[in-house]
Amino acid sequence: MNIAQYIDHTLLRQDATNADVIVLCNEAISHSFASVCVNPCRVPIASKTLADSAVKVCTVTAFPLGATSTVAKLAETKWCLDNGADEIDTVINIGECKAGNWDYVEDELRKVAELVHSYKAILKVIFENCLLDESEIVQACKVSMKAAVDFVKTSTGFSTGGATQEDVKLMVETVAGTCRVKAAGGIRNYDDAVTMINLGADRIGTSGGVAIVAGEERVLGDY
Amino acid sequence: MNIAQYIDHTLLRQDATNADVIVLCNEAISHSFASVCVNPCRVPIASKTLADSAVKVCTVTAFPLGATSTVAKLAETKWCLDNGADEIDTVINIGECKAGNWDYVEDELRKVAELVHSYKAILKVIFENCLLDESEIVQACKVSMKAAVDFVKTSTGFSTGGATQEDVKLMVETVAGTCRVKAAGGIRNYDDAVTMINLGADRIGTSGGVAIVAGEERVLGDY
Repeated sequence: MNIAQYIDHTLLRQDATNADVIVLCNEAISHSFASVCVNPCRVPIASKTLADSAVKVCTVTAFPLGATSTVAKLAETKWCLDNGADEIDTVINIGECKAGNWDYVEDELRKVAELVHSYKAILKVIFENCLLDESEIVQACKVSMKAAVDFVKTSTGFSTGGATQEDVKLMVETVAGTCRVKAAGGIRNYDDAVTMINLGADRIGTSGGVAIVAGEERVLGDY
Repeated sequence: MNIAQYIDHTLLRQDATNADVIVLCNEAISHSFASVCVNPCRVPIASKTLADSAVKVCTVTAFPLGATSTVAKLAETKWCLDNGADEIDTVINIGECKAGNWDYVEDELRKVAELVHSYKAILKVIFENCLLDESEIVQACKVSMKAAVDFVKTSTGFSTGGATQEDVKLMVETVAGTCRVKAAGGIRNYDDAVTMINLGADRIGTSGGVAIVAGEERVLGDY
């Protein structure tokens, strides 16, 4: 497989500067990653740096807690889209998932999805699986499908756990091709990434993209 | 001292529900805390629950990373104010602090402060000191004063470190009464809280408010 095409090359540290993001973008161009994934305030510099490349600009909204108003999620997302974002990874309202208020969760996701799709951009919805039980992950997949999002995503990388094989398998089975799955959080090397892709993940969110492609080169070199 | 009046009774877990926030609010009423501090989506239930009390509704915006656009910070803050928030704790753009782009930081804070003050509400600015060096903390205090914010605040509680005695002392000395200081992050018992107040902190952000007042009762019982 050409693993680079699966990778959202990710830098979400809050102390990252525009200079750091330019380095990230140039790495993404050099390795032909799917996208760079940066915080909203770094979308303009990423968009400018990637203007002549095939690498997409991905950003995160309501990140990493997801615990803001729908109005705020829409406003933040719109600004990112207006400033060059091609892909939005937004965090679900986890408290409403825990409360079983699935109509709220679905309604919010539908509004964000409609906005994102009106820009012909892609929406990925982050669940933060480590805070959900299995039935909640299944239900979150179902409302995400009903809201017509493009991807469901395992984790922010900022909570108590990242992508697990069990959860990726469960998500892939539940969405059954209606949307795609992004695995993120704790994926640091080539073996981790290949495992997730073999389980059905279509995108890998990682800050270890350069190490992952180096790992692929080592493995391919063995043959 | 009456320690309860210093406490922002805090619940920022992303999986907290409205039911959890009602419990928090009732504890705050019972102990006469300064405020409850909740995520934006919990402002309406906090405002409703505290309507007949003196306890203020505090919330957090651009939290905990601070790495979103000024437009998004303003939209999120406005929604919170429209829905009953009395106090806004917003996170500074840490990447711009690291890049030395202090005009950007000051301009953003001024816009947020003007919005917050137009509602006669209070603005606290969170620095995330663990990511800043001493000169950056001093400079962040200076731009906060120029932007006319009401409080500078040590930490989100979501990064690699919380409030330290050294940092609180430095912030109190630098702002020199022009604004107040909130210590938050890792303050879990009565002794921690008293130490910060004796250093000049005017407000304590903690999820341990009930334990802190219980500690005060034990100490006062000694006399």
